[in-house]
Amino acid sequence: MEGDLAHIGAGLAAIGSGAAAIGVGNVAGNFLSGALRNPSAAAGQTATLFIGIAFAEALGIFAFLVSLLLMFAV
Amino acid sequence: MEGDLAHIGAGLAAIGSGAAAIGVGNVAGNFLSGALRNPSAAAGQTATLFIGIAFAEALGIFAFLVSLLLMFAV
Amino acid sequence: MEGDLAHIGAGLAAIGSGAAAIGVGNVAGNFLSGALRNPSAAAGQTATLFIGIAFAEALGIFAFLVSLLLMFAV
Amino acid sequence: MEGDLAHIGAGLAAIGSGAAAIGVGNVAGNFLSGALRNPSAAAGQTATLFIGIAFAEALGIFAFLVSLLLMFAV
Amino acid sequence: MEGDLAHIGAGLAAIGSGAAAIGVGNVAGNFLSGALRNPSAAAGQTATLFIGIAFAEALGIFAFLVSLLLMFAV
Repeated sequence: MEGDLAHIGAGLAAIGSGAAAIGVGNVAGNFLSGALRNPSAAAGQTATLFIGIAFAEALGIFAFLVSLLLMFAV
Repeated sequence: MEGDLAHIGAGLAAIGSGAAAIGVGNVAGNFLSGALRNPSAAAGQTATLFIGIAFAEALGIFAFLVSLLLMFAV
Repeated sequence: MEGDLAHIGAGLAAIGSGAAAIGVGNVAGNFLSGALRNPSAAAGQTATLFIGIAFAEALGIFAFLVSLLLMFAV
Repeated sequence: MEGDLAHIGAGLAAIGSGAAAIGVGNVAGNFLSGALRNPSAAAGQTATLFIGIAFAEALGIFAFLVSLLLMFAV
Repeated sequence: MEGDLAHIGAGLAAIGSGAAAIGVGNVAGNFLSGALRNPSAAAGQTATLFIGIAFAEALGIFAFLVSLLLMFAV
């Protein structure tokens, strides 16, 4: 048995990256659902869409960052 | 087998960071869903949107912080 | 292999912190959903919003506290 | 018992890749749900559909990348 | 105790393959829900249905690929 325990940690952190995609999906999915019900209002909420995606995506990128740090920096 | 058990902990903590993104997605998704149903009221609830995102994001950043502490401070 | 098993526990506790964010997101998301459907009633429910967020956030902070205790106090 | 601990990590990272598919499914599912209720507006939201899929898919591909790195580069 | 640690990883990766099925199910389920409400519009959205399924399925196939690589190539 060889290898570094940090590699198990890197794999675990990647689960967090994937989990964040569920949050991104909630944001974009709800936008699409609403935009197709009321298309004329969709343009005015595009900024909010990107704000919501950005905050959720950031948490996933944090998890990805932890994964990279565990593989190459620790 | 080498490495520090704290690195497994750091990876686990990053899952928490990703899970918080689901909460952020719920807040932003529901705002978008409602804002597209009633666009004229959206501007008045923007403050609540950011309050909701901030509380959920904070918990994800706490998990990210635990991850960083386990990698570099413990 | 080095390190303390408590560090794995600290990482697991941080998952709880992130999971609490899903609860916070449900509270704030449903408030926004309702507030945009009936904006005139939203101001009267702001206190309830903060009560709901506070109780969900508290559980996440408890998990974060367990994480800190496992790293620095145990 | 033989093998590299990184192989356990690679398997864990693949869970994150699969979890991201839930987010992609939320985006595409909500688009279809709305597009079938209001087909005439669907064409105008196709760009948003691909933006939403791209952000969620990216987080899953990050997890897949971690998996490949753990198998072949670490 | 005999066996290769990579076999544990291969099993974990198969969880990711299964998780992706939730995403595929969201896509196809929402399509069916909408198509049964408005059958005349269903034919025009079949292309989007396959795009949505393809992106979610791809992430599950990545997880399956990781599983195969861990069993036969690593």
